[in-house]
Amino acid sequence: MSPVSPLAPESFPELPAVAGVDLHTFAANLRYRERPDLFLAVLPEGTTVGGVFTTSACPSGPVDWCKQIVDAGVARAVVCNAGNANAFTGSVGAASVHAEVKVLSAALNVPGDQIFVASTGVIGEPLNDDQLTSALSQLVDSPAASWADAAKAITTTDTFIKGAAADVPAGNVVGIAKGSGMIAPDMATMLGFLFTDVAATAQALQLAVSQATSQSFNRITVDSDTSTSDTVLLFSTGAVGNDPIDGPDHPAWAEFSAAVFEVCLDLAHQIVRDGEGATKFIEVHVEGATNDESAEIVARSIADSPLVKTAMAAEDANWGRIVMAVGKAGEPADRDKLAIWIGEEQVTEAGVVHPDYNEDRANEWLANDDVLVRVDMGLGEGSASIWTCDLTHGYIEINAGYRS
Amino acid sequence: MSPVSPLAPESFPELPAVAGVDLHTFAANLRYRERPDLFLAVLPEGTTVGGVFTTSACPSGPVDWCKQIVDAGVARAVVCNAGNANAFTGSVGAASVHAEVKVLSAALNVPGDQIFVASTGVIGEPLNDDQLTSALSQLVDSPAASWADAAKAITTTDTFIKGAAADVPAGNVVGIAKGSGMIAPDMATMLGFLFTDVAATAQALQLAVSQATSQSFNRITVDSDTSTSDTVLLFSTGAVGNDPIDGPDHPAWAEFSAAVFEVCLDLAHQIVRDGEGATKFIEVHVEGATNDESAEIVARSIADSPLVKTAMAAEDANWGRIVMAVGKAGEPADRDKLAIWIGEEQVTEAGVVHPDYNEDRANEWLANDDVLVRVDMGLGEGSASIWTCDLTHGYIEINAGYRS
Repeated sequence: MSPVSPLAPESFPELPAVAGVDLHTFAANLRYRERPDLFLAVLPEGTTVGGVFTTSACPSGPVDWCKQIVDAGVARAVVCNAGNANAFTGSVGAASVHAEVKVLSAALNVPGDQIFVASTGVIGEPLNDDQLTSALSQLVDSPAASWADAAKAITTTDTFIKGAAADVPAGNVVGIAKGSGMIAPDMATMLGFLFTDVAATAQALQLAVSQATSQSFNRITVDSDTSTSDTVLLFSTGAVGNDPIDGPDHPAWAEFSAAVFEVCLDLAHQIVRDGEGATKFIEVHVEGATNDESAEIVARSIADSPLVKTAMAAEDANWGRIVMAVGKAGEPADRDKLAIWIGEEQVTEAGVVHPDYNEDRANEWLANDDVLVRVDMGLGEGSASIWTCDLTHGYIEINAGYRS
Repeated sequence: MSPVSPLAPESFPELPAVAGVDLHTFAANLRYRERPDLFLAVLPEGTTVGGVFTTSACPSGPVDWCKQIVDAGVARAVVCNAGNANAFTGSVGAASVHAEVKVLSAALNVPGDQIFVASTGVIGEPLNDDQLTSALSQLVDSPAASWADAAKAITTTDTFIKGAAADVPAGNVVGIAKGSGMIAPDMATMLGFLFTDVAATAQALQLAVSQATSQSFNRITVDSDTSTSDTVLLFSTGAVGNDPIDGPDHPAWAEFSAAVFEVCLDLAHQIVRDGEGATKFIEVHVEGATNDESAEIVARSIADSPLVKTAMAAEDANWGRIVMAVGKAGEPADRDKLAIWIGEEQVTEAGVVHPDYNEDRANEWLANDDVLVRVDMGLGEGSASIWTCDLTHGYIEINAGYRS
């Protein structure tokens, strides 16, 4: 791993067991050496599942597979390899997925179409099926792994491993994730695997993970790029034995969906904190927009702007760039109603610099690791937050380096 | 000026005079010292004009003014200052524009609402009206300036001055432009001023400049950011005395509009060649899309991708990033029909790596200053080109530096 991001949490969190989830990892040496690069979770009969996948028009073979089987809502295992994304590999890639599924289906004695597959790493290189299937047989027989082991096995360019948990009275929701750019197709992508022992129907899981993703993983941006492999899966073993949560009308829904969201948001923030070259964790909050969608578009325009992101890296309160990014978003905006804050320092008001604005104070807010940029459009009630990081020499260093 | 871009043309072109156009420059010392920062073109009675302006929802005071007067289609002067954009300055900014117009109107004895105004530079700082209006009086009386003087006076972070010309049998079309990022609101923006002595109606000029801009200035991207001040104006003195070109049915239209386009495209390419930190001039050409608009969106997705742009900087044929950028564009795409070329090296075919693909050869194409990335979507007849530059440490260096 590269040096740990300066924005990393102090340590990997203590994560509770999720009853019924059996974790394994193994070093298949597909690309990386001397580290586990295969992750497997074996799940008990009756496990339900929901999932969200990349919107890319060029999805990877594993994404194609998962989309095909997720609607049935049942799962017995999820497997992930790091180092090779099995993306843009055509029918060869599809065959690799089938080979993986066949081996695991036989070894675990579970139906193949209940085995979820994810891959992350280089694009366009076929997997070595012999090496992979041989490793999968050994993976199945490997000793039980910890959450930290599992979180480690799915990493690529990540500089720290990512996990989060939330408890609900009945049981737990635990998640691990990987990602350090929204994508760097040679080495990275965004994957999230969440597990709960609280019983819930597949439909309820699908709703919970879709809603949570839209407000968390889909609200972060490192470089505005989108992977061909992005995958978030939520599995319920149901081991707690509660009356299964079947949707928003169930009395436990609010608490359960909030726990799923909490885990997703925590993991999403960790991904931003591991953004390639990041030295600042930035929340862009837009309020007063005509509606929430409009607020999100404006917030994303600011968060994706290379000029805003380089100004943040320099700890320079160059607020003209924020005005520019609001202006280019193409959303309803009235220059003369716009108010901008950097940290708690109000920069503009009613379309001009605020009379009390002090640039030194604004720059002091920017000297923190965590920065809040707040924009009030002054038009309505719509609001949204997007989380991002700054754009530094480190990003160029990592991404303008050769793959080998 | 910073060191000249390695992609700059060898020299400023020889530009012909445009009959009736009277150029002046002056050092007002508004921000820059010891260089002209004011440009004025005085135009004869009967001059017609068309213009295109930023789509930003937060346009500058000068843009507001120009939009207000351009529909009348008549012009007697255009003035531009560099160093202060007079943007996000509210009613104070509007008053500055009026003060400029008033002084020039009196000094030139022309109607104020026929005087076009542009400003480029820092955002959010009021202009010093006394200093500016005093300088304008001296500007009017200054000796005649050359095209190179004029091109110099409108620059901010530009590392070279930009001009282009095209001749039509009857006369000339000459343009100057400035810009080195699509925007860096502290110092930059995109301005283009074109002049012709070929007589044309305001409606014809408007059509010619709109069409040309959509295929040139609107087809370049340095950092995907959009200025609050972008302005392209096309003036016709009509000094040639031809039967005025009044639209596409006029026999001289094709040649005239082609000349306007040629000048705009040349200037647009020069702006990309001066992209902040640029070391590569990149054409992204997408063909085989369902239609031209779709092709443009896909081409822009590739050209704006930080991951593609950093790979280009590294001269690394990391084509997985191109696949990613096609996939994220949200346009109709079929992974299994996609073909990609880097230079003349075919990388992919039918959704997998081309059997003859050779990465060393692809990297050789990337070693050139000028790079072509070509994508065939395999779906239809739509095509479009977008021009961009690579993303380097130089971009970060320039944009993460303090303003003062």
